[in-house]
Amino acid sequence: MIEAVHGDPIAALILSLAIILVAAKVGAHFAVAFGQPPVLGELAAGVVLGNLTLTGFHGLDYLRSDVSVDTLSRLGVILLLFQVGLESTVAQMMKVGFSSFMVATLGVIGPFVLGWGVAAWLLPGAGIYAHVFIGATLTATSVGITARVLRDLGRSDTDEARIILGAAVIDDVQGLVILAVVGGIVAAANRGTALSYGAVGLVLAKATLFLVGALGLGVYLSKRLFSLASRLNAGGVLLALGLAFCFVLAWLADAIGLAPIVGAFAAGLVLEDLHYRDFTDRGEHALTTLVEPIASFLVPVFFVIMGVRTDVRVFGNPAVLGLAAALTAAAIVGKQLCALGVVGRGLDRLSVGIGMIPRGEVGLIFANMGLTLTVAGMPLVNQDVFSAVVVMVICTTLITPPALKWSFHRFSRRAALAGDDLPTRFIQGGLP
Amino acid sequence: MIEAVHGDPIAALILSLAIILVAAKVGAHFAVAFGQPPVLGELAAGVVLGNLTLTGFHGLDYLRSDVSVDTLSRLGVILLLFQVGLESTVAQMMKVGFSSFMVATLGVIGPFVLGWGVAAWLLPGAGIYAHVFIGATLTATSVGITARVLRDLGRSDTDEARIILGAAVIDDVQGLVILAVVGGIVAAANRGTALSYGAVGLVLAKATLFLVGALGLGVYLSKRLFSLASRLNAGGVLLALGLAFCFVLAWLADAIGLAPIVGAFAAGLVLEDLHYRDFTDRGEHALTTLVEPIASFLVPVFFVIMGVRTDVRVFGNPAVLGLAAALTAAAIVGKQLCALGVVGRGLDRLSVGIGMIPRGEVGLIFANMGLTLTVAGMPLVNQDVFSAVVVMVICTTLITPPALKWSFHRFSRRAALAGDDLPTRFIQGGLP
Repeated sequence: MIEAVHGDPIAALILSLAIILVAAKVGAHFAVAFGQPPVLGELAAGVVLGNLTLTGFHGLDYLRSDVSVDTLSRLGVILLLFQVGLESTVAQMMKVGFSSFMVATLGVIGPFVLGWGVAAWLLPGAGIYAHVFIGATLTATSVGITARVLRDLGRSDTDEARIILGAAVIDDVQGLVILAVVGGIVAAANRGTALSYGAVGLVLAKATLFLVGALGLGVYLSKRLFSLASRLNAGGVLLALGLAFCFVLAWLADAIGLAPIVGAFAAGLVLEDLHYRDFTDRGEHALTTLVEPIASFLVPVFFVIMGVRTDVRVFGNPAVLGLAAALTAAAIVGKQLCALGVVGRGLDRLSVGIGMIPRGEVGLIFANMGLTLTVAGMPLVNQDVFSAVVVMVICTTLITPPALKWSFHRFSRRAALAGDDLPTRFIQGGLP
Repeated sequence: MIEAVHGDPIAALILSLAIILVAAKVGAHFAVAFGQPPVLGELAAGVVLGNLTLTGFHGLDYLRSDVSVDTLSRLGVILLLFQVGLESTVAQMMKVGFSSFMVATLGVIGPFVLGWGVAAWLLPGAGIYAHVFIGATLTATSVGITARVLRDLGRSDTDEARIILGAAVIDDVQGLVILAVVGGIVAAANRGTALSYGAVGLVLAKATLFLVGALGLGVYLSKRLFSLASRLNAGGVLLALGLAFCFVLAWLADAIGLAPIVGAFAAGLVLEDLHYRDFTDRGEHALTTLVEPIASFLVPVFFVIMGVRTDVRVFGNPAVLGLAAALTAAAIVGKQLCALGVVGRGLDRLSVGIGMIPRGEVGLIFANMGLTLTVAGMPLVNQDVFSAVVVMVICTTLITPPALKWSFHRFSRRAALAGDDLPTRFIQGGLP
């Protein structure tokens, strides 16, 4: 009974956070020591924590599915994309808009076709619906990891970064449409009816409306909103309002069927220093400065937990590894088509292609749906295909940080040798 | 099915946070406009949001019991006490240690005796166990609100603040012992055996060991820990390690039966600028600067939610109001005994007494236990007594911010008139 006085429900969470934060920094230290971006160390630290269970220690098994930790990690990635969005403006994004659109489109076509081919080759008996579905599973870029690497390398304020991030946003919209199409085809096949183009069109229209509305109307509204709010006589109004703006757009994105991080990124793009000059003029810190420590607290939670959830045992299943290797190759090679979408001279096309490699949650959600969808009474994909997709997600996530660092470095060196004046900022860049 | 792509579990939370943050700032604005500390506005904003249900709008009813919002609010109050702890050192606390101890002890005796008397007077038929129990319910100070008002008024770095906060910590230990004693007496009465002094002694020993260990060993260990950690070559190590240290001590406090905020406050006391000079020397911000935006995000969540959970309908129950008024008076008047515990000249005794007024969670937990404890088959307290305790908690919480502001102001003015040089910092102080 004595124990019942406090026994705060937060006790388990704060201990978990302490473990995660320490692991993140130790991991980041070793990653930097080996010349890698810190995020790779955070992921690796998470993989170690998450697989301690293999050594017989089960004390941290709960981290994989702990709801509170999951909540904070999701807040973390939202803040990360908000932060990255703050570093660019809508105008800067528009400048690279065509490139982003082309990169996104080619980056969907490449892995889709290759994934379809791989599935048709290795799973000839699975039927065309399964092949198409597996192709679709490879399309969506998971932008969290790339956004983080760009920040780690001090390059989030470059045209390449904007092209990649813009493409990832468009990619998310396209992924939504593909899901609507593939899901609609499967449903139509089962019912013996035709695909409803109206439903697919509605999905596309809603997503487009959100993006245009958020970016267009957002700039107009946020200016007035912040000017109005600057009359509030209380401390911390800028941070509170900035976060509230980010959260509302993230919520709206989710409500429309997009990822919340797309909304958070849009919120960051929309908010510009000009809008809140009233606040900074009276001595408040800039929004980027205020968001930094919050992100610094919560972002590592996201990446460590991403590592924790990586079950290395999937690599021990020989039945899966062949398909996994082929899908991973299709996922990586397919996205290199993106390089062709970059319009303009002096840009680092290779880095754009590499930056589009990571796959994440959306691929897993697709694969998971495949387990439950049936065509003529048979599940669309089986457990082995699902495990192969998991391996693909892990590999593309882990390969991106070192590959992106290498390609940026390579480009800087070449530009320096060629005496080209365009990308000098890359040479000045480097690890912060 | 299309909706299933994202439908992120965080969507509801981020919308809630946006609403809470905006409400907090609007509330704070009006509080400041009426010359009150911002926290009163946050509480009031919460009361409005939480009681919209009375107008027939039930869209925010979930806020009262939402687990994610509750988690963030608990993190918020932990960070608040960590922040307040950072503003003092262990040495400064030791200087006022005797005052704190006396204030805490008198602040337990006063409300206990008065509460017992009120219960015996208004509930003569309830029996002595119930009377003693109701007295015990009034003893524990809830330090969150006072800590926040002290910060709002820019006075957390004063001897008065340290006396109050130190007393609240000791108070928590004493509350634990009282609960052990009262619970033990009730259990012994039911079993017909004697109270186990051993069990009570163990509770006291564990709590004392924690405080001595955290403050003594903590200073020694944290110096070495931070010096070791300064060799980690990664960004944000200071913040991550500071938070991890806070979280571990908060967790330990909880494990021992104390409130997690006691551990967080101890962690703040232990960490001194000196310990992490290695970090600030290399250009990182000080820990206080880094924690500020995180607290600025999460602390208002705690106070708005505290308001949200205030069901104003308890004030509409005439059967309860008489007892509630008497208990509230006992709770307020009883703590004024604290003023006698302040040792030293030139100190603001009235403000210390007022700062000890707020009751919170621990009182509610006591009252809630009373509902379930039985003596000779009858519950120790009934639902009306519980509601009266709820009213007492609400009133003591709402009265403290304006009362504390008034008393500090009064003391500053008197000191200025008297030409006393001791409390000049009070005159320079005022709202930040």
